[in-house]
Amino acid sequence: MEYSTSSLINSFQHKEEHTTLFNHQISARIRLATELDVPNLHKLVTQMAEYHGLSQIFTTTETSLYNNLFKSPNPPFHSPTALILEISPNPFPQTNHTTTTNFVPIIKNNYNFDNLEILDHELETYRSKFNGHGHDNSNNCDVYVAGHVLVYPSYNGLFEKPGLFLDQMFVRKCYRGMKFGKLLFSAVAMQAEKMGMGMVDWLVANWNEETINFYEKMGAHYIPDYRLYTLYGDQLQAFGKKSD
Amino acid sequence: MEYSTSSLINSFQHKEEHTTLFNHQISARIRLATELDVPNLHKLVTQMAEYHGLSQIFTTTETSLYNNLFKSPNPPFHSPTALILEISPNPFPQTNHTTTTNFVPIIKNNYNFDNLEILDHELETYRSKFNGHGHDNSNNCDVYVAGHVLVYPSYNGLFEKPGLFLDQMFVRKCYRGMKFGKLLFSAVAMQAEKMGMGMVDWLVANWNEETINFYEKMGAHYIPDYRLYTLYGDQLQAFGKKSD
Repeated sequence: MEYSTSSLINSFQHKEEHTTLFNHQISARIRLATELDVPNLHKLVTQMAEYHGLSQIFTTTETSLYNNLFKSPNPPFHSPTALILEISPNPFPQTNHTTTTNFVPIIKNNYNFDNLEILDHELETYRSKFNGHGHDNSNNCDVYVAGHVLVYPSYNGLFEKPGLFLDQMFVRKCYRGMKFGKLLFSAVAMQAEKMGMGMVDWLVANWNEETINFYEKMGAHYIPDYRLYTLYGDQLQAFGKKSD
Repeated sequence: MEYSTSSLINSFQHKEEHTTLFNHQISARIRLATELDVPNLHKLVTQMAEYHGLSQIFTTTETSLYNNLFKSPNPPFHSPTALILEISPNPFPQTNHTTTTNFVPIIKNNYNFDNLEILDHELETYRSKFNGHGHDNSNNCDVYVAGHVLVYPSYNGLFEKPGLFLDQMFVRKCYRGMKFGKLLFSAVAMQAEKMGMGMVDWLVANWNEETINFYEKMGAHYIPDYRLYTLYGDQLQAFGKKSD
């Protein structure tokens, strides 16, 4: 469960003052990612790849994130979609959404923790660029990105209804153990249910016992008989050239 | 690798004559499924669920297949898409497609087998309903559905490019061992490559050694550290009702 990023160490020196931001209370919001989130999202998926030891195959760029998440003609959740977890020492304003296709932000204000010691060496780096849809939140004080989830619609041919495949879910290390993962997962499951979908499915690293326990408690079904394969790079390109 | 369907046995009685259809040669075609394929496709996904011991959770209906595969505003491969494998004792006519969004049918005429003994007890049931797009193939003699594959677009946040997730690939039992599975898989991989996608990924049953060997030979990467979870039914619905 340890990072090995040098960026964490590099950003350590001058940001100690930010570790006092949270004083027994922290507020959280989950909302749809926007184009403004691309730089922060790119840092998150990069850390996710490092966390899973997949940096060697990682090729995501800010441009590719933008193209894959924000250039589809389909509405959110009908094509690859990212949700962003933000945290703040201040409560988030309640928003009033009436559309059904959009995602209504989930806000949990003022989580209380007796011993809230958060040492976020990347706090400034992860300052949220989101300032609301046309609302004047432009000063946007003290809102920081703490995690994300990536989903896209799936269809397995077994169930009557399609589903959402949850491909990445990540909470930055210093914000773990505060039930933000559960909040992110719930956001996806609630959205699937709201859209009349029949399932949410995802992969979990075998070594990630903590996460596995979390899913088991929730009533998720472990499908033990399957293994994941993927074809990419040269092996995939070879198929473009052959005719048999 | 054994079926346990009573339908196979029920259809056994009166169709012995059809087992002589193939005389050392068999031709194959892979094409996009159309609405006319829904009844055959439903039989195939039902058999797939039986083969994997998943009949108890299987809820797919002809209507749900139609809704999930043919009501999307997106072009094929940009939403759940089925490819159909057809076989015939006669060669398939070559088609001339010039569009890039459509799938160009893959035709392999006159496979030669020294000992071609195919005992297809469901031959008549699986007669193809497809008669070409506006072409006069209306007599459509001796074309039968032998398998299918289901795919949908995926995005994992690791690769620069999106991919195709291959969710089901099935060849009816009496047509196995004739490299039709490889033909179906190649069709998907070629399409992914043609569309500029970065990967194809899929799950394989652990007990399916034959299929695993097939994928390993092809250069597919086994991602050993992951396990599949799915949330559906009551457990998923519970998320629609909760607010935390």
